[in-house]
Amino acid sequence: MILNEIIENILSASNIILVTHISPDGDAIGCTIAMYKALKLLKKDVKIFIDDDIPDVYKFLPNSDKIERPYDKNADIIVVIDCADKDRIGNAQELLKKDIISVNIDHHISNTLYADINYVDTNAASAAEIIYQIIKLLGINFDSDISTCLYTAIVTDTGGFMYNSTTAFTHEVAADLINNGAPVSYISDKIFHNITYNKIKLIGRALDSLKLYKNGKIACLEITKKDLDETNSKVSDIENIVNYGRDINGVEVAILLVEKDDEIKVSLRSKEKVDVNKIAQIFGGGGHIRASGCSLKNSLEEAKIQILNKIKDIINEG
Amino acid sequence: MILNEIIENILSASNIILVTHISPDGDAIGCTIAMYKALKLLKKDVKIFIDDDIPDVYKFLPNSDKIERPYDKNADIIVVIDCADKDRIGNAQELLKKDIISVNIDHHISNTLYADINYVDTNAASAAEIIYQIIKLLGINFDSDISTCLYTAIVTDTGGFMYNSTTAFTHEVAADLINNGAPVSYISDKIFHNITYNKIKLIGRALDSLKLYKNGKIACLEITKKDLDETNSKVSDIENIVNYGRDINGVEVAILLVEKDDEIKVSLRSKEKVDVNKIAQIFGGGGHIRASGCSLKNSLEEAKIQILNKIKDIINEG
Repeated sequence: MILNEIIENILSASNIILVTHISPDGDAIGCTIAMYKALKLLKKDVKIFIDDDIPDVYKFLPNSDKIERPYDKNADIIVVIDCADKDRIGNAQELLKKDIISVNIDHHISNTLYADINYVDTNAASAAEIIYQIIKLLGINFDSDISTCLYTAIVTDTGGFMYNSTTAFTHEVAADLINNGAPVSYISDKIFHNITYNKIKLIGRALDSLKLYKNGKIACLEITKKDLDETNSKVSDIENIVNYGRDINGVEVAILLVEKDDEIKVSLRSKEKVDVNKIAQIFGGGGHIRASGCSLKNSLEEAKIQILNKIKDIINEG
Repeated sequence: MILNEIIENILSASNIILVTHISPDGDAIGCTIAMYKALKLLKKDVKIFIDDDIPDVYKFLPNSDKIERPYDKNADIIVVIDCADKDRIGNAQELLKKDIISVNIDHHISNTLYADINYVDTNAASAAEIIYQIIKLLGINFDSDISTCLYTAIVTDTGGFMYNSTTAFTHEVAADLINNGAPVSYISDKIFHNITYNKIKLIGRALDSLKLYKNGKIACLEITKKDLDETNSKVSDIENIVNYGRDINGVEVAILLVEKDDEIKVSLRSKEKVDVNKIAQIFGGGGHIRASGCSLKNSLEEAKIQILNKIKDIINEG
């Protein structure tokens, strides 16, 4: 019912704005560009506004060059994709106050239903699974551009079809996208096999620092300012390095400590039992049960002892 | 036609032996155990013979404890799965000489058609896609055991649905296996997020040694005897470490040199252009166009210079 209402509103609109969240990921970018191409095929006047930089890794996607920073523009309808909260769309949220019909298409359980028409499917592993259905309902034949963007969205938001959220429908959509021209190994190469030399050297430094505690239940990795400087690394290169600790057999909690100018940035991951969100909150941070973070105004060594002791206590209690 | 002949032979047999190749991987193990369970549901007398150790990582698979080393046994039919050549089944090939109907089910283009009945589908991304069809044709309802084994086979043989071999059918099979009880994130955790501490430390050593040559087109990694000893690593821990070099952006050829007692083991990978099989053959080794290996009776430093010079020449010519 709601999907039909969305379809009717899109079909009757002439000018359409597409937006997604800041710090855009593969799902956010893939969905908005796929939708852009679909609406272009319907001869609509379409704009994509994202209030942030587009990571280089997604610039191979067809029509990624059509993404603009938001500016004040009138339209008949604004479609917000993959945004749990309107604050997440940055300055583009100004458009929601205007006399423009707003549509909210998302898969996050925390969605605040901020638009005129809200469609939130929390069973979808990615927003792309919903956009796939919408483009089908719009009566558009999938081309290679649309298929490439949506396959990229799915493969990134499911960690390569590995996360718990992956369903039979996820694979059914992937199958259809391949039939319509999504190039599997090309996309994998661009997304997963395209690491910088600096990041590889930084991973090496972090792995050298790896130590296990508490009979192998805790893994701790460190990245010092010297490591960052000598490997010429950016903060964005740190992403996911903590997973090397979590992925060790027997480890329940992994810690990554990163020495910044005036504080220690701490990333926490857990496998099955420990709520690392609670641990991060003790130190003024937060996140999710299995992935969280906080910052400490200590030396690296002091921060490590504080975090380690807290985790040891929690494992002892559990 | 051939599939029907296989089905008829299996259905009319009472005693069935299943075998697969030595150095068994996820596809080999997953397929034979899935087939074992299917034939057990048909009340057949089934044995699985694999002439090698089963990697620990696959021991979570249901019925993996039913795998035996081969011994002389009579049966009505022997089904060889995922073996391009009969030498690859080790001592179990003795059974092919007996008065037993042999069936060869595979997806490798190099298959030598060594059995009485041969079914080789080179379009299949994994042998599991063929076994899936055979179990369907046998009229068996997929249970969680069968689905778990075949999903594991597919996810490992396609590198997590990333290799070029992945087709729409691959995803369609994956979807059906999830509908029949394959637990996606449990399998991913067991296969991809279950690394030993020793292997992580060895990866760190290898990444520290990483150097780029030829304007970043060649990546070279080294593992010394000291690295192996000090990280308490096994040779099997070396697997895939060369991929860290290949996955760097701009790199065309990656080299991993491993210092063994009396020789240097060399692994070679390429991205798009260089035929590393040809390079390995120059040094008495071989493999595939994008993945090959050889051994040199030099010091690590001498071996490195020889291999590097040969690759530089080939890149200059290309």
